[in-house]
Amino acid sequence: MKPKIRLCVEHPLGPGQPVALTREQAHYLFGVMRLSVGATVALFNGRDGEWSAEVVDAGKRGGTLECREQTAPQGSPPDLWLCFAPVKKTRTDFIVEKAVELGVRRLLPVQTEFTNSERIRRDRLQAHAVEAAEQCGATFVPEVAELVRLDRLLAGWDGARQILFCDEALAGQDAPLSGLAPGPWAVLIGPEGGFSQPERDRLRGMDAAHPVALGPRILRADTAAVAALVLWQTRLGDWQ
Amino acid sequence: MKPKIRLCVEHPLGPGQPVALTREQAHYLFGVMRLSVGATVALFNGRDGEWSAEVVDAGKRGGTLECREQTAPQGSPPDLWLCFAPVKKTRTDFIVEKAVELGVRRLLPVQTEFTNSERIRRDRLQAHAVEAAEQCGATFVPEVAELVRLDRLLAGWDGARQILFCDEALAGQDAPLSGLAPGPWAVLIGPEGGFSQPERDRLRGMDAAHPVALGPRILRADTAAVAALVLWQTRLGDWQ
Repeated sequence: MKPKIRLCVEHPLGPGQPVALTREQAHYLFGVMRLSVGATVALFNGRDGEWSAEVVDAGKRGGTLECREQTAPQGSPPDLWLCFAPVKKTRTDFIVEKAVELGVRRLLPVQTEFTNSERIRRDRLQAHAVEAAEQCGATFVPEVAELVRLDRLLAGWDGARQILFCDEALAGQDAPLSGLAPGPWAVLIGPEGGFSQPERDRLRGMDAAHPVALGPRILRADTAAVAALVLWQTRLGDWQ
Repeated sequence: MKPKIRLCVEHPLGPGQPVALTREQAHYLFGVMRLSVGATVALFNGRDGEWSAEVVDAGKRGGTLECREQTAPQGSPPDLWLCFAPVKKTRTDFIVEKAVELGVRRLLPVQTEFTNSERIRRDRLQAHAVEAAEQCGATFVPEVAELVRLDRLLAGWDGARQILFCDEALAGQDAPLSGLAPGPWAVLIGPEGGFSQPERDRLRGMDAAHPVALGPRILRADTAAVAALVLWQTRLGDWQ
Protein backbone atom coordinates (compact mmCIF):
# COMPACT_ATOMS: atom_id res chain seq x y z
CA MET A 1 0.00 0.00 0.00
CA LYS A 2 1.96 2.96 -1.30
CA PRO A 3 1.23 6.28 0.34
CA LYS A 4 -0.06 8.99 -1.94
CA ILE A 5 2.48 11.76 -2.53
CA ARG A 6 1.24 14.97 -0.91
CA LEU A 7 2.79 18.39 -1.32
CA CYS A 8 2.14 21.62 0.53
CA VAL A 9 2.37 24.64 -1.81
CA GLU A 10 1.87 28.40 -1.58
CA HIS A 11 -0.27 28.76 -4.74
CA PRO A 12 -4.02 29.12 -4.76
CA LEU A 13 -5.65 25.85 -5.84
CA GLY A 14 -8.73 25.49 -8.04
CA PRO A 15 -10.03 23.73 -11.17
CA GLY A 16 -7.38 23.81 -13.93
CA GLN A 17 -5.06 25.94 -11.80
CA PRO A 18 -1.42 25.53 -12.90
CA VAL A 19 1.06 25.26 -10.05
CA ALA A 20 4.74 25.98 -10.65
CA LEU A 21 7.13 23.92 -8.60
CA THR A 22 10.14 25.17 -6.69
CA ARG A 23 13.50 23.63 -7.45
CA GLU A 24 13.32 21.55 -4.26
CA GLN A 25 9.85 20.29 -5.03
CA ALA A 26 10.86 19.37 -8.59
CA HIS A 27 13.90 17.54 -7.26
CA TYR A 28 11.75 15.63 -4.81
CA LEU A 29 9.00 14.67 -7.27
CA PHE A 30 11.10 13.93 -10.34
CA GLY A 31 14.51 13.09 -8.88
CA VAL A 32 13.68 11.27 -5.64
CA MET A 33 10.18 9.92 -6.32
CA ARG A 34 10.81 9.45 -10.07
CA LEU A 35 7.46 10.83 -11.20
CA SER A 36 7.02 11.83 -14.82
CA VAL A 37 4.45 13.70 -16.92
CA GLY A 38 0.95 12.30 -16.33
CA ALA A 39 1.56 11.26 -12.72
CA THR A 40 -0.82 12.47 -10.03
CA VAL A 41 0.09 14.26 -6.79
CA ALA A 42 -2.08 15.61 -3.97
CA LEU A 43 -1.68 19.33 -3.28
CA PHE A 44 -2.83 21.51 -0.39
CA ASN A 45 -2.03 25.05 0.69
CA GLY A 46 -3.80 25.42 4.01
CA ARG A 47 -6.71 27.38 2.46
CA ASP A 48 -8.27 25.53 -0.49
CA GLY A 49 -8.51 21.91 0.70
CA GLU A 50 -6.72 19.05 -1.04
CA TRP A 51 -6.56 18.77 -4.83
CA SER A 52 -5.35 16.05 -7.12
CA ALA A 53 -2.97 17.54 -9.65
CA GLU A 54 -1.31 16.12 -12.73
CA VAL A 55 2.30 16.59 -13.73
CA VAL A 56 2.21 18.51 -17.03
CA ASP A 57 5.85 19.54 -17.18
CA ALA A 58 8.78 17.86 -15.40
CA GLY A 59 12.27 19.33 -15.36
CA LYS A 60 15.40 19.13 -13.26
CA ARG A 61 15.00 22.60 -11.84
CA GLY A 62 11.27 23.05 -11.97
CA GLY A 63 8.02 21.82 -13.39
CA THR A 64 4.30 22.43 -13.48
CA LEU A 65 1.33 20.62 -12.05
CA GLU A 66 -2.27 21.26 -13.03
CA CYS A 67 -5.11 20.92 -10.54
CA ARG A 68 -7.80 18.44 -11.55
CA GLU A 69 -10.36 18.06 -8.78
CA GLN A 70 -10.73 18.72 -5.09
CA THR A 71 -10.19 15.50 -3.13
CA ALA A 72 -10.79 16.85 0.39
CA PRO A 73 -12.35 19.99 1.81
CA GLN A 74 -10.20 22.44 3.76
CA GLY A 75 -9.96 21.17 7.32
CA SER A 76 -8.92 22.90 10.47
CA PRO A 77 -7.83 21.50 13.81
CA PRO A 78 -9.64 22.82 16.90
CA ASP A 79 -8.50 26.17 18.33
CA LEU A 80 -5.68 24.66 20.35
CA TRP A 81 -2.18 26.07 20.73
CA LEU A 82 0.85 24.16 21.94
CA CYS A 83 3.23 26.29 24.01
CA PHE A 84 6.40 24.30 24.63
CA ALA A 85 9.90 24.88 25.90
CA PRO A 86 12.38 23.76 23.21
CA VAL A 87 14.42 20.76 24.31
CA LYS A 88 17.10 18.86 22.40
CA LYS A 89 16.90 19.10 18.62
CA THR A 90 15.49 15.62 17.93
CA ARG A 91 12.93 15.90 20.69
CA THR A 92 11.85 19.38 19.62
CA ASP A 93 11.40 18.13 16.05
CA PHE A 94 9.42 15.29 17.49
CA ILE A 95 7.12 17.63 19.44
CA VAL A 96 6.43 19.64 16.27
CA GLU A 97 5.73 16.52 14.19
CA LYS A 98 3.43 14.98 16.78
CA ALA A 99 1.53 18.22 17.40
CA VAL A 100 0.72 18.50 13.69
CA GLU A 101 -0.49 14.89 13.57
CA LEU A 102 -2.55 15.19 16.74
CA GLY A 103 -4.02 18.50 15.60
CA VAL A 104 -3.09 21.98 16.84
CA ARG A 105 -3.71 25.41 15.35
CA ARG A 106 -0.46 27.10 16.42
CA LEU A 107 2.93 26.19 17.85
CA LEU A 108 4.58 28.61 20.30
CA PRO A 109 8.12 27.87 21.49
CA VAL A 110 8.52 29.46 24.92
CA GLN A 111 11.65 30.20 26.89
CA THR A 112 11.20 29.35 30.55
CA GLU A 113 13.68 29.83 33.38
CA PHE A 114 15.01 26.28 33.02
CA THR A 115 14.99 26.23 29.21
CA ASN A 116 18.46 25.58 27.82
CA SER A 117 18.01 26.85 24.27
CA GLU A 118 18.01 30.60 23.90
CA ARG A 119 17.24 30.45 20.22
CA ILE A 120 15.44 28.20 17.82
CA ARG A 121 15.53 27.81 14.07
CA ARG A 122 11.97 28.90 13.44
CA ASP A 123 12.22 28.26 9.68
CA ARG A 124 13.47 24.72 10.27
CA LEU A 125 10.65 23.94 12.71
CA GLN A 126 8.12 25.42 10.26
CA ALA A 127 9.48 23.21 7.46
CA HIS A 128 9.19 20.28 9.83
CA ALA A 129 5.53 21.15 10.46
CA VAL A 130 4.89 21.30 6.70
CA GLU A 131 6.49 17.89 6.22
CA ALA A 132 4.40 16.40 9.03
CA ALA A 133 1.21 17.79 7.47
CA GLU A 134 2.19 16.32 4.10
CA GLN A 135 2.70 12.93 5.73
CA CYS A 136 -0.37 12.77 7.95
CA GLY A 137 -2.99 13.76 5.38
CA ALA A 138 -3.77 17.11 6.98
CA THR A 139 -4.80 20.11 4.87
CA PHE A 140 -3.75 22.58 7.56
CA VAL A 141 -0.23 23.54 8.68
CA PRO A 142 0.09 25.17 12.11
CA GLU A 143 2.17 28.32 12.21
CA VAL A 144 5.36 28.10 14.29
CA ALA A 145 5.75 31.37 16.21
CA GLU A 146 9.03 33.02 17.22
CA LEU A 147 10.51 32.00 20.56
CA VAL A 148 9.00 34.14 23.32
CA ARG A 149 9.81 34.38 27.02
CA LEU A 150 7.16 32.73 29.17
CA ASP A 151 6.75 35.78 31.44
CA ARG A 152 6.14 38.02 28.43
CA LEU A 153 3.73 35.54 26.89
CA LEU A 154 1.73 35.33 30.12
CA ALA A 155 1.81 39.11 30.67
CA GLY A 156 -0.10 39.59 27.43
CA TRP A 157 -2.27 36.51 27.73
CA ASP A 158 -5.89 36.75 26.53
CA GLY A 159 -7.90 35.40 29.47
CA ALA A 160 -10.47 33.91 27.08
CA ARG A 161 -7.91 31.25 26.08
CA GLN A 162 -7.62 28.63 28.79
CA ILE A 163 -4.28 26.98 29.57
CA LEU A 164 -3.77 23.30 30.27
CA PHE A 165 -0.67 23.57 32.39
CA CYS A 166 1.22 20.29 32.71
CA ASP A 167 2.82 20.38 36.11
CA GLU A 168 5.15 17.47 36.82
CA ALA A 169 4.99 18.43 40.51
CA LEU A 170 1.48 16.89 40.41
CA ALA A 171 2.68 13.44 39.22
CA GLY A 172 0.57 10.80 40.90
CA GLN A 173 -2.22 13.17 41.89
CA ASP A 174 -5.72 13.40 40.47
CA ALA A 175 -6.01 14.70 36.94
CA PRO A 176 -8.77 17.31 37.17
CA LEU A 177 -9.41 17.35 33.44
CA SER A 178 -13.13 16.65 33.69
CA GLY A 179 -15.57 19.54 33.69
CA LEU A 180 -13.38 21.91 31.67
CA ALA A 181 -15.20 24.28 29.35
CA PRO A 182 -14.80 24.20 25.58
CA GLY A 183 -13.37 27.25 23.78
CA PRO A 184 -9.89 28.39 22.79
CA TRP A 185 -7.17 26.51 24.66
CA ALA A 186 -3.41 26.20 24.93
CA VAL A 187 -1.40 23.27 26.25
CA LEU A 188 1.71 24.45 28.11
CA ILE A 189 4.70 22.11 28.53
CA GLY A 190 7.85 23.00 30.44
CA PRO A 191 11.45 21.92 29.78
CA GLU A 192 13.07 18.75 31.19
CA GLY A 193 13.83 20.55 34.45
CA GLY A 194 10.20 21.58 34.91
CA PHE A 195 8.90 25.03 35.75
CA SER A 196 10.58 27.24 38.36
CA GLN A 197 8.67 27.98 41.54
CA PRO A 198 7.94 31.60 40.51
CA GLU A 199 6.64 30.35 37.15
CA ARG A 200 4.47 27.77 38.87
CA ASP A 201 3.12 30.40 41.31
CA ARG A 202 2.42 32.77 38.46
CA LEU A 203 0.47 30.12 36.55
CA ARG A 204 -1.43 29.00 39.62
CA GLY A 205 -2.53 32.60 40.12
CA MET A 206 -4.07 32.81 36.64
CA ASP A 207 -7.80 32.05 36.33
CA ALA A 208 -7.25 30.77 32.80
CA ALA A 209 -4.63 28.18 33.85
CA HIS A 210 -5.67 24.65 34.84
CA PRO A 211 -2.94 22.40 36.24
CA VAL A 212 -3.12 18.78 35.11
CA ALA A 213 -1.29 15.63 36.21
CA LEU A 214 -0.15 13.18 33.55
CA GLY A 215 -0.09 9.90 35.44
CA PRO A 216 2.13 8.62 38.23
CA ARG A 217 5.46 8.42 36.35
CA ILE A 218 7.70 11.33 35.35
CA LEU A 219 7.34 12.02 31.65
CA ARG A 220 9.94 13.56 29.40
CA ALA A 221 8.89 16.91 27.95
CA ASP A 222 8.14 15.41 24.53
CA THR A 223 6.06 12.60 26.00
CA ALA A 224 4.16 15.09 28.16
CA ALA A 225 3.37 17.20 25.09
CA VAL A 226 1.92 14.23 23.21
CA ALA A 227 0.01 12.96 26.26
CA ALA A 228 -1.52 16.36 27.02
CA LEU A 229 -2.58 16.86 23.40
CA VAL A 230 -4.22 13.41 23.31
CA LEU A 231 -6.02 14.12 26.60
CA TRP A 232 -7.28 17.46 25.33
CA GLN A 233 -8.33 16.10 21.94
CA THR A 234 -10.34 13.26 23.47
CA ARG A 235 -12.07 15.48 26.04
CA LEU A 236 -12.56 18.78 24.22
CA GLY A 237 -11.21 18.44 20.67
CA ASP A 238 -12.03 16.66 17.43
CA TRP A 239 -11.27 13.15 18.73
CA GLN A 240 -14.42 13.14 20.85
CA MET B 1 17.67 21.22 39.40
CA LYS B 2 19.96 18.27 38.78
CA PRO B 3 18.26 14.95 38.15
CA LYS B 4 19.06 12.23 40.64
CA ILE B 5 21.20 9.47 39.13
CA ARG B 6 19.19 6.25 38.94
CA LEU B 7 20.59 2.85 38.05
CA CYS B 8 18.80 -0.40 37.27
CA VAL B 9 20.75 -3.41 38.62
CA GLU B 10 20.31 -7.19 38.80
CA HIS B 11 21.24 -7.55 42.49
CA PRO B 12 18.75 -7.99 45.30
CA LEU B 13 18.43 -4.74 47.27
CA GLY B 14 18.03 -4.42 51.05
CA PRO B 15 19.46 -2.66 54.11
CA GLY B 16 23.28 -2.68 53.99
CA GLN B 17 23.29 -4.78 50.80
CA PRO B 18 26.53 -4.31 48.83
CA VAL B 19 26.04 -4.01 45.07
CA ALA B 20 28.95 -4.68 42.73
CA LEU B 21 28.98 -2.58 39.58
CA THR B 22 29.59 -3.78 36.07
CA ARG B 23 32.38 -2.19 34.09
CA GLU B 24 29.85 -0.13 32.11
CA GLN B 25 28.10 1.08 35.24
CA ALA B 26 31.41 2.03 36.87
CA HIS B 27 32.43 3.90 33.73
CA TYR B 28 29.12 5.77 33.73
CA LEU B 29 29.12 6.69 37.42
CA PHE B 30 32.80 7.49 37.91
CA GLY B 31 33.97 8.37 34.40
CA VAL B 32 30.98 10.16 32.88
CA MET B 33 29.13 11.45 35.95
CA ARG B 34 32.34 11.98 37.99
CA LEU B 35 30.97 10.52 41.22
CA SER B 36 33.39 9.54 43.96
CA VAL B 37 33.27 7.62 47.26
CA GLY B 38 30.48 8.96 49.48
CA ALA B 39 28.18 10.00 46.62
CA THR B 40 24.59 8.74 46.57
CA VAL B 41 22.81 6.96 43.75
CA ALA B 42 19.28 5.57 43.47
CA LEU B 43 19.07 1.85 42.67
CA PHE B 44 16.18 -0.36 41.58
CA ASN B 45 15.95 -3.90 40.23
CA GLY B 46 12.29 -4.30 39.34
CA ARG B 47 11.54 -6.29 42.52
CA ASP B 48 12.69 -4.47 45.67
CA GLY B 49 11.59 -0.87 45.10
CA GLU B 50 14.03 2.04 44.94
CA TRP B 51 16.98 2.34 47.35
CA SER B 52 19.45 5.08 48.01
CA ALA B 53 22.94 3.64 47.88
CA GLU B 54 26.32 5.10 48.72
CA VAL B 55 29.48 4.69 46.68
CA VAL B 56 31.93 2.78 48.95
CA ASP B 57 34.47 1.81 46.31
CA ALA B 58 35.08 3.53 42.97
CA GLY B 59 37.40 2.13 40.31
CA LYS B 60 37.92 2.35 36.60
CA ARG B 61 36.66 -1.12 35.92
CA GLY B 62 34.26 -1.65 38.77
CA GLY B 63 33.13 -0.45 42.13
CA THR B 64 30.72 -1.12 44.98
CA LEU B 65 27.63 0.64 46.25
CA GLU B 66 25.99 -0.08 49.57
CA CYS B 67 22.22 0.22 50.05
CA ARG B 68 21.15 2.67 52.76
CA GLU B 69 17.38 3.01 52.82
CA GLN B 70 14.38 2.33 50.64
CA THR B 71 13.25 5.55 48.95
CA ALA B 72 10.22 4.17 47.04
CA PRO B 73 8.17 0.99 47.23
CA GLN B 74 8.18 -1.44 44.33
CA GLY B 75 5.68 -0.18 41.78
CA SER B 76 4.05 -1.92 38.90
CA PRO B 77 2.24 -0.52 35.88
CA PRO B 78 -1.25 -1.89 35.13
CA ASP B 79 -1.49 -5.24 33.31
CA LEU B 80 -1.14 -3.69 29.87
CA TRP B 81 0.92 -5.04 26.99
CA LEU B 82 2.00 -3.10 23.96
CA CYS B 83 2.10 -5.19 20.78
CA PHE B 84 3.71 -3.15 18.02
CA ALA B 85 5.10 -3.69 14.55
CA PRO B 86 8.73 -2.52 14.52
CA VAL B 87 9.23 0.51 12.30
CA LYS B 88 12.43 2.45 11.56
CA LYS B 89 15.11 2.23 14.24
CA THR B 90 14.64 5.68 15.79
CA ARG B 91 10.88 5.36 15.84
CA THR B 92 11.00 1.87 17.34
CA ASP B 93 13.34 3.14 20.07
CA PHE B 94 10.91 5.94 20.61
CA ILE B 95 7.95 3.55 21.00
CA VAL B 96 9.88 1.55 23.61
CA GLU B 97 10.92 4.66 25.56
CA LYS B 98 7.43 6.17 25.54
CA ALA B 99 5.76 2.87 26.52
CA VAL B 100 7.98 2.62 29.60
CA GLU B 101 7.21 6.21 30.61
CA LEU B 102 3.47 5.85 30.01
CA GLY B 103 3.40 2.53 31.86
CA VAL B 104 3.16 -0.94 30.30
CA ARG B 105 3.91 -4.37 31.73
CA ARG B 106 5.31 -6.01 28.59
CA LEU B 107 6.48 -5.06 25.10
CA LEU B 108 5.79 -7.48 22.24
CA PRO B 109 7.25 -6.68 18.82
CA VAL B 110 4.98 -8.30 16.20
CA GLN B 111 5.62 -9.00 12.56
CA THR B 112 2.58 -8.18 10.45
CA GLU B 113 2.13 -8.63 6.72
CA PHE B 114 3.23 -5.06 6.00
CA THR B 115 6.07 -4.99 8.57
CA ASN B 116 9.39 -4.25 6.90
CA SER B 117 11.77 -5.52 9.59
CA GLU B 118 12.10 -9.26 9.81
CA ARG B 119 14.34 -9.11 12.82
CA ILE B 120 14.87 -6.88 15.80
CA ARG B 121 17.74 -6.45 18.25
CA ARG B 122 15.84 -7.61 21.31
CA ASP B 123 18.80 -6.92 23.63
CA ARG B 124 19.13 -3.38 22.33
CA LEU B 125 15.43 -2.66 22.80
CA GLN B 126 15.59 -4.17 26.31
CA ALA B 127 18.55 -1.92 27.17
CA HIS B 128 16.54 0.99 25.84
CA ALA B 129 13.64 0.07 28.14
CA VAL B 130 16.03 -0.07 31.13
CA GLU B 131 17.39 3.36 30.28
CA ALA B 132 13.88 4.80 29.96
CA ALA B 133 12.94 3.38 33.37
CA GLU B 134 16.10 4.88 34.91
CA GLN B 135 15.16 8.27 33.45
CA CYS B 136 11.46 8.37 34.26
CA GLY B 137 11.65 7.36 37.90
CA ALA B 138 9.99 3.97 37.41
CA THR B 139 10.93 0.97 39.55
CA PHE B 140 9.65 -1.50 36.97
CA VAL B 141 11.17 -2.41 33.60
CA PRO B 142 8.86 -4.05 31.06
CA GLU B 143 10.22 -7.18 29.41
CA VAL B 144 10.79 -6.91 25.65
CA ALA B 145 9.67 -10.19 24.06
CA GLU B 146 11.13 -11.79 20.95
CA LEU B 147 9.61 -10.77 17.61
CA VAL B 148 6.57 -12.95 16.87
CA ARG B 149 4.36 -13.20 13.80
CA LEU B 150 0.96 -11.61 14.37
CA ASP B 151 -0.96 -14.67 13.13
CA ARG B 152 0.92 -16.91 15.57
CA LEU B 153 0.42 -14.46 18.42
CA LEU B 154 -3.32 -14.30 17.76
CA ALA B 155 -3.62 -18.09 17.31
CA GLY B 156 -2.46 -18.58 20.90
CA TRP B 157 -4.19 -15.51 22.32
CA ASP B 158 -5.71 -15.81 25.80
CA GLY B 159 -9.25 -14.50 25.36
CA ALA B 160 -9.21 -13.05 28.88
CA ARG B 161 -6.81 -10.35 27.65
CA GLN B 162 -8.67 -7.74 25.65
CA ILE B 163 -7.05 -6.05 22.67
CA LEU B 164 -7.29 -2.37 21.84
CA PHE B 165 -6.78 -2.61 18.12
CA CYS B 166 -5.82 0.70 16.52
CA ASP B 167 -7.30 0.62 13.06
CA GLU B 168 -6.32 3.57 10.89
CA ALA B 169 -9.15 2.59 8.53
CA LEU B 170 -11.44 4.06 11.21
CA ALA B 171 -9.81 7.54 11.13
CA GLY B 172 -12.50 10.15 11.60
CA GLN B 173 -15.07 7.72 12.98
CA ASP B 174 -16.36 7.43 16.52
CA ALA B 175 -13.90 6.13 19.11
CA PRO B 176 -15.87 3.49 21.00
CA LEU B 177 -13.53 3.46 23.96
CA SER B 178 -16.18 4.10 26.56
CA GLY B 179 -17.76 1.16 28.35
CA LEU B 180 -14.76 -1.17 28.08
CA ALA B 181 -14.20 -3.54 30.96
CA PRO B 182 -11.14 -3.42 33.21
CA GLY B 183 -8.80 -6.41 33.31
CA PRO B 184 -5.71 -7.49 31.36
CA TRP B 185 -5.33 -5.59 28.11
CA ALA B 186 -3.04 -5.23 25.12
CA VAL B 187 -2.73 -2.28 22.76
CA LEU B 188 -2.01 -3.41 19.19
CA ILE B 189 -0.38 -1.03 16.71
CA GLY B 190 0.32 -1.89 13.07
CA PRO B 191 3.20 -0.74 10.85
CA GLU B 192 3.18 2.45 8.74
CA GLY B 193 1.29 0.64 5.95
CA GLY B 194 -1.46 -0.44 8.35
CA PHE B 195 -2.89 -3.93 8.75
CA SER B 196 -3.68 -6.12 5.74
CA GLN B 197 -7.33 -6.90 5.02
CA PRO B 198 -6.98 -10.53 6.23
CA GLU B 199 -5.37 -9.26 9.46
CA ARG B 200 -8.14 -6.74 9.93
CA ASP B 201 -10.82 -9.40 9.29
CA ARG B 202 -9.10 -11.77 11.70
CA LEU B 203 -9.03 -9.14 14.45
CA ARG B 204 -12.61 -8.07 13.82
CA GLY B 205 -13.66 -11.68 14.28
CA MET B 206 -12.09 -11.91 17.75
CA ASP B 207 -14.36 -11.21 20.73
CA ALA B 208 -11.37 -9.90 22.69
CA ALA B 209 -10.45 -7.28 20.07
CA HIS B 210 -11.94 -3.77 20.20
CA PRO B 211 -11.20 -1.48 17.26
CA VAL B 212 -10.53 2.13 18.16
CA ALA B 213 -10.20 5.29 16.09
CA LEU B 214 -7.48 7.77 17.02
CA GLY B 215 -8.90 11.05 15.75
CA PRO B 216 -9.53 12.35 12.25
CA ARG B 217 -5.92 12.60 11.03
CA ILE B 218 -3.64 9.74 10.00
CA LEU B 219 -1.08 9.07 12.73
CA ARG B 220 2.36 7.59 12.28
CA ALA B 221 2.79 4.25 14.01
CA ASP B 222 4.81 5.75 16.87
CA THR B 223 2.27 8.52 17.45
CA ALA B 224 -0.56 5.98 17.40
CA ALA B 225 1.24 3.88 20.03
CA VAL B 226 1.61 6.83 22.39
CA ALA B 227 -1.94 8.05 21.77
CA ALA B 228 -3.48 4.62 22.39
CA LEU B 229 -1.48 4.13 25.60
CA VAL B 230 -2.57 7.55 26.90
CA LEU B 231 -6.21 6.78 26.03
CA TRP B 232 -6.05 3.44 27.80
CA GLN B 233 -4.23 4.81 30.85
CA THR B 234 -6.75 7.61 31.34
CA ARG B 235 -9.79 5.34 30.92
CA LEU B 236 -8.71 2.06 32.47
CA GLY B 237 -5.18 2.44 33.84
CA ASP B 238 -3.32 4.22 36.62
CA TRP B 239 -3.85 7.72 35.20
CA GLN B 240 -7.53 7.68 36.16
